[in-house]
Amino acid sequence: MDNYALPVQRLIEEFEKLPGIGRKTAQRLAFHVLNLPEEKVRNFANALVEAKAKIISCSICGNLTDTDPCRICSSTKRDHGIICVVQSPRDVVAMERVREYKGVYHVLNGLISPLDGTGPDDINIKSLIKRVAHNKVNEVILATNPNVEGEATAIYISKILKPMGVKTTRIAQGISVGGDLEYADEITLYKSLEGRREI
Amino acid sequence: MDNYALPVQRLIEEFEKLPGIGRKTAQRLAFHVLNLPEEKVRNFANALVEAKAKIISCSICGNLTDTDPCRICSSTKRDHGIICVVQSPRDVVAMERVREYKGVYHVLNGLISPLDGTGPDDINIKSLIKRVAHNKVNEVILATNPNVEGEATAIYISKILKPMGVKTTRIAQGISVGGDLEYADEITLYKSLEGRREI
Repeated sequence: MDNYALPVQRLIEEFEKLPGIGRKTAQRLAFHVLNLPEEKVRNFANALVEAKAKIISCSICGNLTDTDPCRICSSTKRDHGIICVVQSPRDVVAMERVREYKGVYHVLNGLISPLDGTGPDDINIKSLIKRVAHNKVNEVILATNPNVEGEATAIYISKILKPMGVKTTRIAQGISVGGDLEYADEITLYKSLEGRREI
Repeated sequence: MDNYALPVQRLIEEFEKLPGIGRKTAQRLAFHVLNLPEEKVRNFANALVEAKAKIISCSICGNLTDTDPCRICSSTKRDHGIICVVQSPRDVVAMERVREYKGVYHVLNGLISPLDGTGPDDINIKSLIKRVAHNKVNEVILATNPNVEGEATAIYISKILKPMGVKTTRIAQGISVGGDLEYADEITLYKSLEGRREI
């Protein structure tokens, strides 16, 4: 065991609990904090506690928010007839960055993943179905990531929603803009070919 | 600007201030924190504030400590006649891990680096000289890192200490144990050759 004073040891251990932070990085971060002025450390600590205390899940879409319903769900400028289904709040932020999408969201907070023991009931699918049933929804865009779990989750949801008579779409998969055919994997190339459109 | 609720935004910014943490990692860490139980977030925040509040510099060696003098400086089991001079508290921990060194330390908290505007007066050199002058010191081991700044700092200190009649040594430089001559850089190889010993 390393010979740090106990409060330093504890701080290193706290940093080490964060995802992707190993022992060495945790030490580096802890020593960085010890070299900061006390006020800045307090600001950091307050930001942690405050974010955790103030941020809740939107009762409509499940996105992280400090108001309920969230700003997007309560906006009159958005088209509440189009719901974009994503895995996580970070995906909402990514979509919002495009500035083209004017519908609303539904955050699943996970994907169906039998390997990780996550079934359909462990993510926000029920609330989506209820939402579609009780509101006038024209289209549900399934924008989960194009990997095995994302694909499986999209197919699962579409199989429930289609019989309810709602249009269900899936985001396009293919070569990314600025990408290179030479370096694209076979499945992406196949998807890109399969999804070709007349120009 | 990304569309996060303000407390989330603030938390991301706090993480981003840490060294080596970029925007994406800061987001990942912030969302990780939001998914933690409130108690764990409080523990993390407390560890930050507490470490900063309780940890001080040892008035003798400059190492980080929660007691003054630090445990090493106040230990009767250590040889106070040998002082190992290092750049940072992390180097003390690295040396202690070896379990062979029984002397004490002096932490410079930096290296002489004209390019960064750090001169001899900006690091703990004066306190080292005072320490050597007022105590019975047999040897000062200069264990700063073997890079330009570490080397310059070691030479600077040795030039002051030698006229005071104290034995001044520098840690050996060469191929690391388990290392490979083929992949060693020229300077390391040269140092390794220069420092050769009869066997």
